[in-house]
Amino acid sequence: MSSAGSAKTSFVSDLKPGERVTSYFLVRQKQLEPFRDRAKGEFLTLMLADRTGQILARVWDNAPAMAETFAVGDVLKIAGDVEEYQGRTQLIVQKVRVASEGEFLLADFLPATTRDVAEMVNAVQAVVARLTEPHLAALVRHFYDDPDFTAQLAEVPASRRLHHAYLGGWLEHLTQVLAFAETAIALHPELNGDLLRTGALLLSAGKVHELKWGRAVDYSDEGRLLGHVVLGDEAVAQALAGLPDFPPELALRVRHMLISHRGRYEWGAPREPMTLEAIALHHIESANTQIARFRDLLATRRDGDQPWTGFNRLLGRPLYAGYEDAGGAGPDDGPEA
Amino acid sequence: MSSAGSAKTSFVSDLKPGERVTSYFLVRQKQLEPFRDRAKGEFLTLMLADRTGQILARVWDNAPAMAETFAVGDVLKIAGDVEEYQGRTQLIVQKVRVASEGEFLLADFLPATTRDVAEMVNAVQAVVARLTEPHLAALVRHFYDDPDFTAQLAEVPASRRLHHAYLGGWLEHLTQVLAFAETAIALHPELNGDLLRTGALLLSAGKVHELKWGRAVDYSDEGRLLGHVVLGDEAVAQALAGLPDFPPELALRVRHMLISHRGRYEWGAPREPMTLEAIALHHIESANTQIARFRDLLATRRDGDQPWTGFNRLLGRPLYAGYEDAGGAGPDDGPEA
Amino acid sequence: MSSAGSAKTSFVSDLKPGERVTSYFLVRQKQLEPFRDRAKGEFLTLMLADRTGQILARVWDNAPAMAETFAVGDVLKIAGDVEEYQGRTQLIVQKVRVASEGEFLLADFLPATTRDVAEMVNAVQAVVARLTEPHLAALVRHFYDDPDFTAQLAEVPASRRLHHAYLGGWLEHLTQVLAFAETAIALHPELNGDLLRTGALLLSAGKVHELKWGRAVDYSDEGRLLGHVVLGDEAVAQALAGLPDFPPELALRVRHMLISHRGRYEWGAPREPMTLEAIALHHIESANTQIARFRDLLATRRDGDQPWTGFNRLLGRPLYAGYEDAGGAGPDDGPEA
Amino acid sequence: MSSAGSAKTSFVSDLKPGERVTSYFLVRQKQLEPFRDRAKGEFLTLMLADRTGQILARVWDNAPAMAETFAVGDVLKIAGDVEEYQGRTQLIVQKVRVASEGEFLLADFLPATTRDVAEMVNAVQAVVARLTEPHLAALVRHFYDDPDFTAQLAEVPASRRLHHAYLGGWLEHLTQVLAFAETAIALHPELNGDLLRTGALLLSAGKVHELKWGRAVDYSDEGRLLGHVVLGDEAVAQALAGLPDFPPELALRVRHMLISHRGRYEWGAPREPMTLEAIALHHIESANTQIARFRDLLATRRDGDQPWTGFNRLLGRPLYAGYEDAGGAGPDDGPEA
Amino acid sequence: MSSAGSAKTSFVSDLKPGERVTSYFLVRQKQLEPFRDRAKGEFLTLMLADRTGQILARVWDNAPAMAETFAVGDVLKIAGDVEEYQGRTQLIVQKVRVASEGEFLLADFLPATTRDVAEMVNAVQAVVARLTEPHLAALVRHFYDDPDFTAQLAEVPASRRLHHAYLGGWLEHLTQVLAFAETAIALHPELNGDLLRTGALLLSAGKVHELKWGRAVDYSDEGRLLGHVVLGDEAVAQALAGLPDFPPELALRVRHMLISHRGRYEWGAPREPMTLEAIALHHIESANTQIARFRDLLATRRDGDQPWTGFNRLLGRPLYAGYEDAGGAGPDDGPEA
Amino acid sequence: MSSAGSAKTSFVSDLKPGERVTSYFLVRQKQLEPFRDRAKGEFLTLMLADRTGQILARVWDNAPAMAETFAVGDVLKIAGDVEEYQGRTQLIVQKVRVASEGEFLLADFLPATTRDVAEMVNAVQAVVARLTEPHLAALVRHFYDDPDFTAQLAEVPASRRLHHAYLGGWLEHLTQVLAFAETAIALHPELNGDLLRTGALLLSAGKVHELKWGRAVDYSDEGRLLGHVVLGDEAVAQALAGLPDFPPELALRVRHMLISHRGRYEWGAPREPMTLEAIALHHIESANTQIARFRDLLATRRDGDQPWTGFNRLLGRPLYAGYEDAGGAGPDDGPEA
Repeated sequence: MSSAGSAKTSFVSDLKPGERVTSYFLVRQKQLEPFRDRAKGEFLTLMLADRTGQILARVWDNAPAMAETFAVGDVLKIAGDVEEYQGRTQLIVQKVRVASEGEFLLADFLPATTRDVAEMVNAVQAVVARLTEPHLAALVRHFYDDPDFTAQLAEVPASRRLHHAYLGGWLEHLTQVLAFAETAIALHPELNGDLLRTGALLLSAGKVHELKWGRAVDYSDEGRLLGHVVLGDEAVAQALAGLPDFPPELALRVRHMLISHRGRYEWGAPREPMTLEAIALHHIESANTQIARFRDLLATRRDGDQPWTGFNRLLGRPLYAGYEDAGGAGPDDGPEA
Repeated sequence: MSSAGSAKTSFVSDLKPGERVTSYFLVRQKQLEPFRDRAKGEFLTLMLADRTGQILARVWDNAPAMAETFAVGDVLKIAGDVEEYQGRTQLIVQKVRVASEGEFLLADFLPATTRDVAEMVNAVQAVVARLTEPHLAALVRHFYDDPDFTAQLAEVPASRRLHHAYLGGWLEHLTQVLAFAETAIALHPELNGDLLRTGALLLSAGKVHELKWGRAVDYSDEGRLLGHVVLGDEAVAQALAGLPDFPPELALRVRHMLISHRGRYEWGAPREPMTLEAIALHHIESANTQIARFRDLLATRRDGDQPWTGFNRLLGRPLYAGYEDAGGAGPDDGPEA
Repeated sequence: MSSAGSAKTSFVSDLKPGERVTSYFLVRQKQLEPFRDRAKGEFLTLMLADRTGQILARVWDNAPAMAETFAVGDVLKIAGDVEEYQGRTQLIVQKVRVASEGEFLLADFLPATTRDVAEMVNAVQAVVARLTEPHLAALVRHFYDDPDFTAQLAEVPASRRLHHAYLGGWLEHLTQVLAFAETAIALHPELNGDLLRTGALLLSAGKVHELKWGRAVDYSDEGRLLGHVVLGDEAVAQALAGLPDFPPELALRVRHMLISHRGRYEWGAPREPMTLEAIALHHIESANTQIARFRDLLATRRDGDQPWTGFNRLLGRPLYAGYEDAGGAGPDDGPEA
Repeated sequence: MSSAGSAKTSFVSDLKPGERVTSYFLVRQKQLEPFRDRAKGEFLTLMLADRTGQILARVWDNAPAMAETFAVGDVLKIAGDVEEYQGRTQLIVQKVRVASEGEFLLADFLPATTRDVAEMVNAVQAVVARLTEPHLAALVRHFYDDPDFTAQLAEVPASRRLHHAYLGGWLEHLTQVLAFAETAIALHPELNGDLLRTGALLLSAGKVHELKWGRAVDYSDEGRLLGHVVLGDEAVAQALAGLPDFPPELALRVRHMLISHRGRYEWGAPREPMTLEAIALHHIESANTQIARFRDLLATRRDGDQPWTGFNRLLGRPLYAGYEDAGGAGPDDGPEA
Repeated sequence: MSSAGSAKTSFVSDLKPGERVTSYFLVRQKQLEPFRDRAKGEFLTLMLADRTGQILARVWDNAPAMAETFAVGDVLKIAGDVEEYQGRTQLIVQKVRVASEGEFLLADFLPATTRDVAEMVNAVQAVVARLTEPHLAALVRHFYDDPDFTAQLAEVPASRRLHHAYLGGWLEHLTQVLAFAETAIALHPELNGDLLRTGALLLSAGKVHELKWGRAVDYSDEGRLLGHVVLGDEAVAQALAGLPDFPPELALRVRHMLISHRGRYEWGAPREPMTLEAIALHHIESANTQIARFRDLLATRRDGDQPWTGFNRLLGRPLYAGYEDAGGAGPDDGPEA
Repeated sequence: MSSAGSAKTSFVSDLKPGERVTSYFLVRQKQLEPFRDRAKGEFLTLMLADRTGQILARVWDNAPAMAETFAVGDVLKIAGDVEEYQGRTQLIVQKVRVASEGEFLLADFLPATTRDVAEMVNAVQAVVARLTEPHLAALVRHFYDDPDFTAQLAEVPASRRLHHAYLGGWLEHLTQVLAFAETAIALHPELNGDLLRTGALLLSAGKVHELKWGRAVDYSDEGRLLGHVVLGDEAVAQALAGLPDFPPELALRVRHMLISHRGRYEWGAPREPMTLEAIALHHIESANTQIARFRDLLATRRDGDQPWTGFNRLLGRPLYAGYEDAGGAGPDDGPEA
């Protein structure tokens, strides 16, 4: 997700107290507040963001009028001064205007994969190209030959927050799931390899409709009301309808594998896996999801001297990142004397 | 499910010891067994059935050869004598041949609704005809104007065993769910009436593909691997694809209502209800399902002098049918003196 | 819940900035706060409420002394000026005194049903009057002929927060449950109609003791420690003790139906339904509870342009209210280009 | 449960092959079966029982006529010969007649506690006598001064199968629960001792109605439909109604403790413990129940050389009784060489 | 946990407005805040604590410099004035310096058992001394003869927050569990008494490593990553390795009892109890844990006039402490007229 | 698991009616039964087994005496005739004697992996040899350099029934888990590769003690009472005790990874995964377990023309093996006309 050619020259993570900056920022929050001396009227507090983080900003002068000119979700061109106040860096805004669409790159305002997108796309398309079962190959190509589909594939996050929650995250996850699939196929000759590969590749069919991403990642209404399992099944059923020679039992196996891939009713699967490829797809997809989820949770906290992340409510526990010098003795030497 | 014109003149529930009978029966089980005096060779034990029940039958003579001529699932024309042995009625078979398809009515061999099918069809079609929202009406008519669909609708059981598990059972359930829907609509003006009616009517779209019924009711392979929720969604999504003017948000509401109608993830719903019509459909469908299920379980046992049904494993308890004279004092007067 | 004859002339939902108002308000919160200039001492912040909503109020002058004169939960007669501050309407209090009991109507301070209470009472009493089984009729009339009971019945909310959580809410729910019961009875002749009606009517016996409502709705100590299931059973068992000819088995069926009406152990039922009427009562009561709960949750949020309600922790999901123009295309057209 | 004065002189557990016996036995099962040589007609197979066990019996001569003279559940006076056949002891019946009520002691036909009943009754009554809080004492004596109640108390089993499932079993359990209660009271002065004792003593109020025991232990219809929690609450509420000076809050605490004593909704408690005495009663009653349950399961299997009991479905595991010489090395020395 | 010889003369719970105090306090929180008049710079807000409670404190003068001299977790020697502000007692700090280790007693800063520690240690050692099975006695003495172990035993809390969450709490719990064990042994002769006592005594082996306590109670890294079940098993297995004559089956029974003592997989037991002593240990330990947990929750709230504690999230309910005059009529007389 | 050099020349799966056979068989069941003509005394029915399956056998002559000479679990040398009776192959035994230990190979009587054991051992040892972190390498070699350990490793099944339930099954599983681990390490550079490999390799430490296998696979007493999680932790903790320089935090990470590898409390994990390597190990081990479990269940049923396996109680569903010609149209064409 290169920023080559971007007009955005300063990023939040680089701002240093004392410097003057002119750059583009996304408005996440916006609030007018009265001065302590009410006679002075109101000032404006903003939360500005780009893909590297977020920063508090203040507009001291002419705030009410300026507040009228933009909304949360807008990208602004801002000139201002970076300050430190009570240990936090903040931006004192001097000039503001709303940026027009062509001025900036969307990718500058959402976190994105650090891997090479084109390379990942090629890796996935290589798997598509190697499918030898002709019906499965035709079904998969129905999607992967469609430029709209592949354009979305290159961007869609894997989830809103849980794992790979950034532009290109799904693609990254998909390449990893495909790699696990090859291992499974090599180890278990009973698996129908092309069927399992097809299952992994067609998970994308629902995913591209589940999320929307612009200046933030969120579920689409369809994603919330129908879910990517049903959305994917719809897309695959429609594609199958256009392939009249597709063997019915094979179609049943493909669809069963996709709709059961969450593994358990209570995890949102309308059916639980009943074929070898279905159980394999469920487990390798889960394995990569959870490894990535732990990786992301640990990354958020690893910088400090704190060995534990905060308590994670969904997991019901904190995670252990450990000490810098992981091979050495930890500082936890039991009860103090 | 009238038997007018049927060549089947005797039914299992009518057989009396001492009479000679010639009629058609479905073979449910078939087993060769050695005589106690092994020198005598083997006899044949059959379980014969029709829609009124099942009866044990024996072939004493020439059994191994006769056993070769038919298979479990065949309908046989049988002549034999009804006997009583150890308190059970059984049939001593004298002559057997496999019946050809035209000789008998399928409906004689599966239990069927006792209600008037044509009347129930009319009641349902009347609901269809009264829909006033034009898009919903068009969507529903896509199914209910299709003679193949309505032919299946008239026959499909509601489930294999749980409730309304007989020919015409789904239709009976559907008319009842529609009646509950009218009550809900009358009580809660916030409900979009046509939307809720559409939801109830389109539950049929998946149901007709989930089960197969010929000489027994069972799940189809599709029914097991995809389930009626997904099968129904496929059919509705396909129908919507043929209605280009159908408002997208309304389509989303229809599909959400259908895919969430089981109410909870652990009951096989890929999404849980998030709209008013979806929660209403879930609850009225569940209410009628459970009332009918209890009714059927109690009916099986009510004849005897036994107030309790057997322990039901799925429910985790027996049911209470009570004493004949339900208004009077029961025989259970506590600890014996 | 008419306010005819009430001395309360202004309601919170009607207050407009700029007007002077004199009316009665319930004190929900009360807090002395220092002026920014501490030399000026303290002012008083109040949260005032009536059945239409709540409003922030301030007492600038002589606040500490005034604060001594009343407590949270009191109804005050207040004269003051309505202002707008930072987009919120607030009330600047000029005069305050505690109102005496006779001055106001309790119903003005709690939200109440918008339906006609007398009409609902009549509808319920008509069901009572139509019971034909004499023992059940006598048992039900034991309650519904008691003016204390019916006075409470006209007021008791159905729950503290979950559904119909306002004065007269239980009565509204009861009329709806009785309507569903009539549908069930009409559809399933195996149901003992009077028994099911009795079950619905006697749910009230525990409900009137579970909650207390005065200036707020809350559980009584009995409601928390024993619950309405046990409280209702106590009342019914006591009534049965006064009806010596009541058939014991019928009494058992009535009590079983009531104590099992929550349907599952984990939902607080000491027994799970084992009779046809018990399963029917459970399901129709649940259906109406959940429809009303969704209706109330959606109503709270429907005004805005926001299609989704907030995340509901008990349900584990947000609800979908949709767009104003529900038949049209929604604004959610997938990923931004 | 002494058998002094019983006319029953031989018990199942004492029968030895080769001896002739005349004694009383309870008929548990009864079935006519054809001789292998059908010309010989039918013989009768019986399962006969007394409190020490059960034995298979056969009637070879005149069996159909004899079978007409008695039913399952009758106590028979039988003369016959004890034989061994294929390693099992069986009884060849020569003479049979139905015994009349006065001839035998019920206690000879149901398993019973091996402890001294009178002594246990005295121990319990001593706890009753020591209660010092006058209201609680009066409430408890309402039950324990009632000879009908105490007669049942001396006999009622604690459950049908789970633990202490024999005559006098509840009394045995109760004395043990009271002993645990004294320990809890001594350790935790915050406990209201008389309140906790009252809770343990009044558990009996529901228990005596939950089960019926005559020639077998089973749930009464009331026990199944209402459960001992509700039955006990009814009895206690009725007793409280006759004690007008009983402090209302104390009554609430007593009833809460009783109805919550199963501890969790999913275990059938209509409320979960919310007071100190309620949580204590739940835990000490559970502790003794489970210890006794394990003891009984282990006793059944301990005789053999088999260290493990069979798999117990409710527990989801087998139990470990171990080897005779429990202190020594077990025979399980890992993989065979 | 006597404070004899402590230099700490004033405790938080004793501070009265108007007095000047010089004493030692633990810093729990520390925050620089700007004066409303920013020209005045910043003041310092502290949360100071000792074993009796916590108090808000302010440093008005020279706050930024003073804030540099200590950290959260330090014990400070503070001189200041106690004031009342808005109904809360607070401390205006005049002088501060960090105390050195020798100046204060750790026990003054953590809550501690109010029972006599030496007496409890003696009671536990008396149980150890009475063990008659020589192998078990040797195993237990391996721990209880070790002065490091017994030093920790005298201090370790039973948990961070759940129950007995104070210095000496585990010891208190252990003596109570041992008392319950004696009752169980007396009631159930089938129990191997020394085995059960050993189980209770060896629970300590894991507990002393699970928690760390210094200026706060928290889990150690080992406690979080391995848990006291595994830590205890490690210590016991190691001790057994040093006792070569210990009978293998007895060792298996000891270890099984310890690793299954949480009772259920979902409560963190790697195995569920399968022996009589294991089920007994689980239940008596749970009983005392829950009684103490309720006692502690109720104690926190009992002072006020509020009969209910706050809603407890883990329990899913509030607890009922009741009214001062618990024997009298409560103020909850149902709906207000 | 080659049978080279075995004296066993005929296997159950090869027996053909009409041939005479002399070979070794394991006795699984043994039962004396009376001839129908009782005068003839008793015959003996045996269930004989080897690693290829089991066969019913009869001894007609001199059965009671012969039955005295051997027990269930013995390996017999048998001469007899293979017959077909009622469609089943059975063996009529002519001569029997108990085989002595040296005569046969254990591997002939238990099912065993079809893969090359030496090759798998080499593959695993190659992973051990490639470990570069010196402490982890030393810990792993403590086990893998021990010839007793590796001898057991070559034989131990992965479970009694669930998956890889045959000799060498664990080794097969381990090589597969290690292959998945390499994929995970390649995909996720944040993983500590040697730590994850160590985790997989040390799972064996508990496994070799959990099961015993001789003439049948079963849990050892230790396996049942402590489980392989605790047994493995004991072995690893003991090994660590012999490696005094092993970094404590690294030891904690290794042990945490092992004790949490079942993933959830309810699946028997005393802790849930809190590190990246722990979550990875859990998921890749589960993935391979479930794929192999499905493979084995499907293999059992795939031969017939039946597309579905029987209902699997643990899974709560049948599995779908499909039709021979999986690519073609299945025979399930919906409702019969």
